[in-house]
Amino acid sequence: MKACGLIVEYNPFHNGHLYHARKAKEISNADCTIAVMSGNFLQRGGEPAIIDKFSRAKIAVEQGIDLVVELPYYYAVQHSELFAKGAITLLSALKVHSVCFGSEHGDIAGFNQILGLLSNHQDTYITYFKQALTEGNSYPKAHQKAFYRIGGKDLPVDIAKPNNILGFQYVHSINEIDRSITPLTIQRIQNDYHDQVISEPIASATSIRNELLKEKLPDKILKTTIPNTTRRILLEYKKDHSYWHDWEKYFPLLRYRILTMTADEISGIHGVVEGLEHRLINAAKEAISFESFMKAIKTKRYTWTSLQRVCTHILTNTTKQEIIAKIHTEMEPVRILAMSSVGQQYLNQNKKQISHLFTRV
Amino acid sequence: MKACGLIVEYNPFHNGHLYHARKAKEISNADCTIAVMSGNFLQRGGEPAIIDKFSRAKIAVEQGIDLVVELPYYYAVQHSELFAKGAITLLSALKVHSVCFGSEHGDIAGFNQILGLLSNHQDTYITYFKQALTEGNSYPKAHQKAFYRIGGKDLPVDIAKPNNILGFQYVHSINEIDRSITPLTIQRIQNDYHDQVISEPIASATSIRNELLKEKLPDKILKTTIPNTTRRILLEYKKDHSYWHDWEKYFPLLRYRILTMTADEISGIHGVVEGLEHRLINAAKEAISFESFMKAIKTKRYTWTSLQRVCTHILTNTTKQEIIAKIHTEMEPVRILAMSSVGQQYLNQNKKQISHLFTRV
Repeated sequence: MKACGLIVEYNPFHNGHLYHARKAKEISNADCTIAVMSGNFLQRGGEPAIIDKFSRAKIAVEQGIDLVVELPYYYAVQHSELFAKGAITLLSALKVHSVCFGSEHGDIAGFNQILGLLSNHQDTYITYFKQALTEGNSYPKAHQKAFYRIGGKDLPVDIAKPNNILGFQYVHSINEIDRSITPLTIQRIQNDYHDQVISEPIASATSIRNELLKEKLPDKILKTTIPNTTRRILLEYKKDHSYWHDWEKYFPLLRYRILTMTADEISGIHGVVEGLEHRLINAAKEAISFESFMKAIKTKRYTWTSLQRVCTHILTNTTKQEIIAKIHTEMEPVRILAMSSVGQQYLNQNKKQISHLFTRV
Repeated sequence: MKACGLIVEYNPFHNGHLYHARKAKEISNADCTIAVMSGNFLQRGGEPAIIDKFSRAKIAVEQGIDLVVELPYYYAVQHSELFAKGAITLLSALKVHSVCFGSEHGDIAGFNQILGLLSNHQDTYITYFKQALTEGNSYPKAHQKAFYRIGGKDLPVDIAKPNNILGFQYVHSINEIDRSITPLTIQRIQNDYHDQVISEPIASATSIRNELLKEKLPDKILKTTIPNTTRRILLEYKKDHSYWHDWEKYFPLLRYRILTMTADEISGIHGVVEGLEHRLINAAKEAISFESFMKAIKTKRYTWTSLQRVCTHILTNTTKQEIIAKIHTEMEPVRILAMSSVGQQYLNQNKKQISHLFTRV
């Protein structure tokens, strides 16, 4: 059996994801699809998922994904480089033949060109990247600057676009970790990742979440931009738990936590650098909402999402030490979140090669 | 000017406290009264105060206390020995001539007899006390056993009673820290500390709090067992903040905190001994209320209040290291919570001797 890997967050699973899943199966000619999904906290926004990981995985399987495994927290809540590295490592261990990602560019040839350029200028690239960081650029901005300086501006892929840069990191990781994996890409259609206005029937997860989290339940969204399964499970979840998750709900815990930590303790948290601990403490004293808190700590040096990731790490008490230990040791046992009968069959057929992934050494 | 010191929690200030304040002034023949009060967290129950410290101090001054200073957290949330040591150290620094405490026994001669016995058997007492702790007795029980073994059972003061044991610790601290202070005691009337049933007009703070925290506001309590000032300020506080404080309100924070700490981190918290960290983690996983949590961690080895103190230290992230550092260094600057014109006059007259207490070295 041939498997195609997808790297997803499904927050929540919408029509765009359905399109991606179908298209991936089609162009990869695979027998099954394996999605590596972030758990209860996500990379893209560095925020709590709207509903829990098991519910999100259940929707995906009902919509045709065959196996959903969890990307461990210490890879899931990271900048795109480590996020990609974790996901590709996991998919390689699961023996996928291809990985299919959505991108604004939509043509894999362009990504292969990038890789060629990079491998010829690996050392200069890293020097330029570090230099750009020192000059106070954000992480993605520094990547972009370094890339342009080695000649990337002349290539067809615009890595300033959020899904192109992710795709770039995926291809880069495949090249480093497992060259037997064939990278594939499909063009993202209709909505951009950052679009906040819904233009049905394919809308970005961000815009769907924004609509969902409004006071009055937006019937139109629920009917046009997400599959029925997503609608049903979202509503069931809200009935059982009385709310969907967003940062504002966790802000009292985050604020309490920052105000009872010493500056030294905060600076030990993963992602806290260059005196950010003092900004965090001062902002926490005054802020009355997550949004006002974020505005108070934001500077040019950090992207909004990198700061949200810092907040997540404070909330979960994830230290620099812990991340280093995790990243440099064998991956933890892989957690299966949901699977179809085809997914089950895939696991059985590949038992010898992959069963060790699911047990603790 | 002569000052008489009182050691209080005023949670909230009730008719019994009013009686104590008046009686203290009378028998001490002092010109003013100085209350050393616990802040937002208390020793007796190891719990959050029903309203904030400034409001509680304001009531006390309106009811005739001349100066209210805060007993620092690291003395306030402690077993009776350190609680007494901190309070007496502070009152001595504030140059009081006497300290007046309420006790079930009510006769200072009895307390002086205890002290005589103790000073003759100091070493044996400590040996017996430690032995009783090793045998698994709670802290107060171990004190009682050691005291009985050196002959304390024949003395008139029954130190099994909660205010007698506190009184004993006060006198003991006076003897160690400042013999110029005259200890005085008045008999507590009507209600015992632990009484949960109101018998007006003097009821215990515990019974008043229990009544206050019931769903429907108990008009009878508010009219008969507490002064009008207390009633007014309690109601104002609730109007401004929409609730009074109790442990249940803090349980979500406590639970969140325990579940994001490693066992090692928990064992670094002040008061956590002998594997209690594992009991705390297991109980936090299941408990849905503070009460059910407490029941799950309770064993014969710990009193309810000592466990509540541990919870307070977890909530405030107070480590063993921090407590040791605080206890063995100079006291922090004294915080005045409220004062009358007489209190102000006392501070002015003693400026030379005490002004250093209010500034950081």
